[in-house]
Amino acid sequence: MENELRAELLLSGVPRDPKALDALVPGLAADAIARAVGSRGEGRLAEWKLEGDTLTLLLQSQGARPHQALLSIVRRLGEELGRSQKVGVRSFRALRYRVEFSVDPAPEKPISIPIPHTLSFQGTRATLELTDLSEEGLRDNWVDRVVQLVAEKAKRQSYTGKEQYWSLLQQSAPKDHPGKTDPTEEMLKRLWVRSGPTKGKWFLGPTVAHLLRTMERIARQEVLEPLGFMEVVQPHHDSFDILLKTGHLEGLPGEFYYVAEPTTRDPAAWERFTDLVKITRHVPDDELRRLVGPPSAVSCYAQCPTIYWWLSGRTIATTSLPLRIFDRSAVSNRYESGGRHGLERVDEFHRIEPVFLGTPEQLLALREELLRRYAYVFDQVLELEWRTAWVTPFYMQQAGGVGVEDATARIKGTIDYEAYLPYRGDRATSEWLEFQNLSIVGDKYTSAFTIRAQKGELWSGCSGIGLERWLTTFLAQKGFDPKDWPARFREHAGPMPTDVQFL
Amino acid sequence: MENELRAELLLSGVPRDPKALDALVPGLAADAIARAVGSRGEGRLAEWKLEGDTLTLLLQSQGARPHQALLSIVRRLGEELGRSQKVGVRSFRALRYRVEFSVDPAPEKPISIPIPHTLSFQGTRATLELTDLSEEGLRDNWVDRVVQLVAEKAKRQSYTGKEQYWSLLQQSAPKDHPGKTDPTEEMLKRLWVRSGPTKGKWFLGPTVAHLLRTMERIARQEVLEPLGFMEVVQPHHDSFDILLKTGHLEGLPGEFYYVAEPTTRDPAAWERFTDLVKITRHVPDDELRRLVGPPSAVSCYAQCPTIYWWLSGRTIATTSLPLRIFDRSAVSNRYESGGRHGLERVDEFHRIEPVFLGTPEQLLALREELLRRYAYVFDQVLELEWRTAWVTPFYMQQAGGVGVEDATARIKGTIDYEAYLPYRGDRATSEWLEFQNLSIVGDKYTSAFTIRAQKGELWSGCSGIGLERWLTTFLAQKGFDPKDWPARFREHAGPMPTDVQFL
Repeated sequence: MENELRAELLLSGVPRDPKALDALVPGLAADAIARAVGSRGEGRLAEWKLEGDTLTLLLQSQGARPHQALLSIVRRLGEELGRSQKVGVRSFRALRYRVEFSVDPAPEKPISIPIPHTLSFQGTRATLELTDLSEEGLRDNWVDRVVQLVAEKAKRQSYTGKEQYWSLLQQSAPKDHPGKTDPTEEMLKRLWVRSGPTKGKWFLGPTVAHLLRTMERIARQEVLEPLGFMEVVQPHHDSFDILLKTGHLEGLPGEFYYVAEPTTRDPAAWERFTDLVKITRHVPDDELRRLVGPPSAVSCYAQCPTIYWWLSGRTIATTSLPLRIFDRSAVSNRYESGGRHGLERVDEFHRIEPVFLGTPEQLLALREELLRRYAYVFDQVLELEWRTAWVTPFYMQQAGGVGVEDATARIKGTIDYEAYLPYRGDRATSEWLEFQNLSIVGDKYTSAFTIRAQKGELWSGCSGIGLERWLTTFLAQKGFDPKDWPARFREHAGPMPTDVQFL
Repeated sequence: MENELRAELLLSGVPRDPKALDALVPGLAADAIARAVGSRGEGRLAEWKLEGDTLTLLLQSQGARPHQALLSIVRRLGEELGRSQKVGVRSFRALRYRVEFSVDPAPEKPISIPIPHTLSFQGTRATLELTDLSEEGLRDNWVDRVVQLVAEKAKRQSYTGKEQYWSLLQQSAPKDHPGKTDPTEEMLKRLWVRSGPTKGKWFLGPTVAHLLRTMERIARQEVLEPLGFMEVVQPHHDSFDILLKTGHLEGLPGEFYYVAEPTTRDPAAWERFTDLVKITRHVPDDELRRLVGPPSAVSCYAQCPTIYWWLSGRTIATTSLPLRIFDRSAVSNRYESGGRHGLERVDEFHRIEPVFLGTPEQLLALREELLRRYAYVFDQVLELEWRTAWVTPFYMQQAGGVGVEDATARIKGTIDYEAYLPYRGDRATSEWLEFQNLSIVGDKYTSAFTIRAQKGELWSGCSGIGLERWLTTFLAQKGFDPKDWPARFREHAGPMPTDVQFL
């Protein structure tokens, strides 16, 4: 049979009447297997043996995995033996757990798994044997997750080196652009921004802060408020629990800034640290390591995970749907490493994230309205050269979900907004800047966070408005002379501040 | 003599002509001592000895410390020996460095120092002997910092248990308050806020977010903009370098949230981590520890340190003074541990920090204007019961600075704003809530960050506007019925949002 589980149960003592188990174990196992496997397949207790306080069982099955049966055997055997023989089941584990399954395509390179195992393939047929799988691993269904991981890794091998899915939706007409230079270079030259003090972060002086706030105001007044979005203010530390639920922690762990708490706030415990700082004017690394705990959260990566947490376990009244929410208070942090470039690709940025929940029909209608409002802003207020494309986002590739091959194609999925940056060269060949996006994600998150509608299905979606990217796109195309700026933008901007004069 | 330094210099080889040192060392030392000690005291080379490649020196001095002389001896001896004997000074250290100095008052309890030493007292007279002090410690003047630390610890022993300095400046008349309840309890009951997902952080739903933004708008429109403050947008990670300069890292290390970067962004390096997350749905702590570096920065504690960093090394034109700046983008994080209470005392809050730089006269005039504007807001817009007090702030106690005993009393220093919270009980005996402050700090930070004015002295000051505290103060006094709210506040607030309806 395709599944075979050899389990070892350690009893709390040697049964007083070992023979009684002959009558007990086979029947109890047959019953548990029948109920666990059900109509999906078949299964049997192939062997069993009691030696002293150790009971070994060999379960085989076809069509469904046998560890659910094992859990049931453990529970019921514990009850029976407790009553009749005054011993219980102290612990159990799988000595070996072999499963067979298919992958597509057959992998060309080895596949690694971080728990003890052997793995072999005959074409697309995989044979996986986990060894010494713990009680926790059995209870928590690790075997199915390992099977899924192997399938995912086999599939990803065939994707490696291939391009992200990208399909043009709509493109504005080419424009003549007064802007010719890299806007970050120009802002640095004018001392309008300063780079630092930590990696990929920028200090925006009065002029650039004013322009960034103008972009924020345009997004709010021209897009969000007319469509009934309400502001919330959310914490900007994301807990690990939240990111486990959304899948971000498995998809992007190398892109987070991690947050760690002091192990104590007591000044006496910190005295040696503070004394060393006072004497040496350096941070004593060993002391700090001793006094700061392991990472326990991350600095906001995107806002939607915590918005879903806010609604978790709650049922939203029909009158509040579609629920339209946005946050602009949590500052986004992403560890960009080598990919940084000026204000276009930074480790810290200011992002408005609208999140919306409703029936599929409500969300499709709302997406149309958002597309129209965004188009108005980019065409009439900022007068940009821009385009939209339908793409497959990274987190869906990494954490499962609905791809574009799905029957619901172009219903669930992401639209990217991209802008031409004249300083990068020819519009046909240069890389355009992704400056915002818009997604409908189905019930992926409402289901993960147990958010319900008073009536019917509840889907969600979100949009990421990157204010630094709106700003650099605008300056790259329109340049730095306000006379070249569109009239409606100038109305929103109002009088520009006098920046600080340095000698 | 009060200072005695026994130093050991390790040469790069045995001098070919050791006798030549008899002519060289005493004169060179006498000259170096004379120049280092100068007119402040006296000093001498009491002993010296060459054994093989090791030269020991005993320097004594009165009125000034002898290690500056040692540094000069090392440098010049290296030059001379290099020229005449082809050997240099490879390294040096103090075997023993004894200094005597006075403290006030005489300490009653032992004083700890985190580097090798002995320390004894005869009344207020301290004798400190550092043993095996490194070259870095000598070059970087650790001895004077240890002396300062001992003096500070002796002084602090006498303060322990005494109250913080607090002197009432001004108090509004008592009012009748519609608000009777703890506002956080009421907001929780209405599902307007949710506590979490990490310690001391709150999610503010639409109604409370609207009220918080109203407070922010009032601060901007009624205080900051009329006084010519310009907004900046600053990074919300503070580097260790900045906090070493401001003194925060020695004063408050147990109150920071620390930030750590991934050691790599490469998905291959994270594969074992992500696989374990996918299989177990838990964060594998050991893997994470391996892949995340030590803390390298902190999440914003207050905004002014990074504002000073922005201006560091720059000279501000007279036309830009007094420079008036504020930030409202960096979210403040403080590890409050046991001290948390509702939205009044939280680990994360939204704070506007105005910072101002100018001549002492400009800052005193600006402080008067700020006091007037704040009074207008609290009396006429929010109609609060509030008071101000002159206090000695914590960081000045911890990191030195100007206290109120100073001749410039009530020029440099901090004014706290406090409000009565009716739910806490009687106004005369209950603890009032500090909801904002206003400080002039002299040249402490302009000097630490080398910020200069085109002409004359440059001082600075700052004010912390705690929006969550404005909000809880207001709700604690005015209650939750908008009919009870002051007319001018209602004008600023505009129409309230319809909050989310949960079943």
